[in-house]
Amino acid sequence: MKRTVAQLADGRDIIYFDEADSAVRDLVDHRELPPRPPASQLRHDPLVDEWVAVAAHRQSRTFLPPSDECPLCPSRGGRLTEVPASDYDVVVFENRFPAFSEGTGRCEVVCFTADHDASFASLPPRRVRTVIDALADRTAELSADPAAAQVFCFENRGVEIGVTLHHPHGQIFAYPFLPPRTQRMLAAARAHATRTGGRNLYTDVLAAERAAGERVVAENPHWTAYVPAAARWPYEVHLAPHRQVPDLPALTSEERDAFGPLYLDLLRRFDALFGVPEPTPYISAWHQAPVREDRGLGYLHLQLYTIRRAPGKLKYLAGSESAMGVFINDVPPEAAAAALREA
Amino acid sequence: MKRTVAQLADGRDIIYFDEADSAVRDLVDHRELPPRPPASQLRHDPLVDEWVAVAAHRQSRTFLPPSDECPLCPSRGGRLTEVPASDYDVVVFENRFPAFSEGTGRCEVVCFTADHDASFASLPPRRVRTVIDALADRTAELSADPAAAQVFCFENRGVEIGVTLHHPHGQIFAYPFLPPRTQRMLAAARAHATRTGGRNLYTDVLAAERAAGERVVAENPHWTAYVPAAARWPYEVHLAPHRQVPDLPALTSEERDAFGPLYLDLLRRFDALFGVPEPTPYISAWHQAPVREDRGLGYLHLQLYTIRRAPGKLKYLAGSESAMGVFINDVPPEAAAAALREA
Repeated sequence: MKRTVAQLADGRDIIYFDEADSAVRDLVDHRELPPRPPASQLRHDPLVDEWVAVAAHRQSRTFLPPSDECPLCPSRGGRLTEVPASDYDVVVFENRFPAFSEGTGRCEVVCFTADHDASFASLPPRRVRTVIDALADRTAELSADPAAAQVFCFENRGVEIGVTLHHPHGQIFAYPFLPPRTQRMLAAARAHATRTGGRNLYTDVLAAERAAGERVVAENPHWTAYVPAAARWPYEVHLAPHRQVPDLPALTSEERDAFGPLYLDLLRRFDALFGVPEPTPYISAWHQAPVREDRGLGYLHLQLYTIRRAPGKLKYLAGSESAMGVFINDVPPEAAAAALREA
Repeated sequence: MKRTVAQLADGRDIIYFDEADSAVRDLVDHRELPPRPPASQLRHDPLVDEWVAVAAHRQSRTFLPPSDECPLCPSRGGRLTEVPASDYDVVVFENRFPAFSEGTGRCEVVCFTADHDASFASLPPRRVRTVIDALADRTAELSADPAAAQVFCFENRGVEIGVTLHHPHGQIFAYPFLPPRTQRMLAAARAHATRTGGRNLYTDVLAAERAAGERVVAENPHWTAYVPAAARWPYEVHLAPHRQVPDLPALTSEERDAFGPLYLDLLRRFDALFGVPEPTPYISAWHQAPVREDRGLGYLHLQLYTIRRAPGKLKYLAGSESAMGVFINDVPPEAAAAALREA
């Protein structure tokens, strides 16, 4: 893989990850871009002791443009996009409308393919490996920033969960604080370690799921995919390596190669679940250990879930979920696992 | 107000709250109803030490029926509904498709009016008082159950946030555990009390918001409505009494009477915000102190927010919010307060 770093017209970084070592990325971004927006604010909510990002400039962000105005496509036929190249494999650049920026974190966009009409599920395994290498590269580099507390790689897919650009892409956030959910995970892992003389919580949960087998959807020698016993979402799968590692950079080459086929299989099962032509909306979220503290309490894994509970029906986060944090799941996890195995 | 308790055909409780003391509620529910569904399961998520309710029977719940099949309308013209009466003011009954039931909590439905086409915002202040009295009654009764840990009264409004019945109604949940968000609130309140020699956190936050004034939307001698400085949602208002009380039953008659006009004013501002005919979807959530423990740390208040961020655009809980618990708000709270004051 060849890695090339360049800058966009307004000074943002762009990094190409090319599968061919012969790739040359020397085109200059000739657009006249407005100055970068002011940094977003971090505000502290005293009632729950949590941080909220206020990013007013995002209200004017690009919203579901037609495909011939897609800013994530390569620059072709005289149309200049966010990517000053006529083609690319995987490319990462700083978000033009970031939720976090300049001293309060960083937001990057990762394009999985130059093909506007593709989806992650349609990528070849080789490309998935390139994406994983790119995410590992970004995690390592962003983790080196003393202001970063956690690096979060994720994909939102589908207008049903608010995607504003159709081109297949994910995002990478470097948070300047530990997110509330990570805090809860670390507290639970710490309590478990205390109770058990130092055992890793996720290691024990994964071993129990593999032993039970009832909720396992798919596995290979390096990874297991299962529906957690207390799943929050109608169809939710956790995909974990068999070896405790804190983050993506710590995965071996074999583990990275083994991830793609299993994940692609899972995504295709998600799309086949409901027997409808519309692809299944999903959130795919990599949980990594914090950048500095409590590295040994973490355990890299992916949480993949859809908000669709039936054809034409979505799971909404209404009063109980959004005000109280209590999830109500209408699909028993064992039934979800069976449906995914059969899909 | 006259309170009458009865039972539905399958044994569920129904409680009428009538504004006329002359009301007679003696009609029998003659429907042949299937047995009540099995109790939902509570499952513990070890990764975050939280409870999730698994309620498989809810997948078959009534979903957006036409208005002539509404189960919340009075029983008229031979059509038998959930309410065996030809009219009602406010009525509460146990949910036929509960998220929590039988030893794992309780779920009730509260109908605000017999008028299918009304909305909370269209109720007269007198009716809001009856609703508050009904919620206070239910809070007191459900709190007496030794299995209850917190009582949560809320309204989801609008199909955009998943409402499955259009008839104006709210819900009451008695949780058998402390919800995660309440746990966080109590932890923050406890830390504040320790730091300040016993001061109540919410009392201090409310005093600061009233002193600053910048985010205050409306007020009267008993209540203040303001956009919190670290609002999560595009338009979010907290409505709090000026006196620290743990829950709705503790409100005086004057405080209850003063709530209605201010809340109705707020709801109408929400509906006027976007200049579109479609009513604004919202979640309206009463935060009450836990039933038994930490009563002095709590402070009754209502959190009202919409997921609409602009005409035709919703705020979605995508990767950052749902996987990490980190909210990104595109509307500065001061701008939201100004827009609500002017609406």
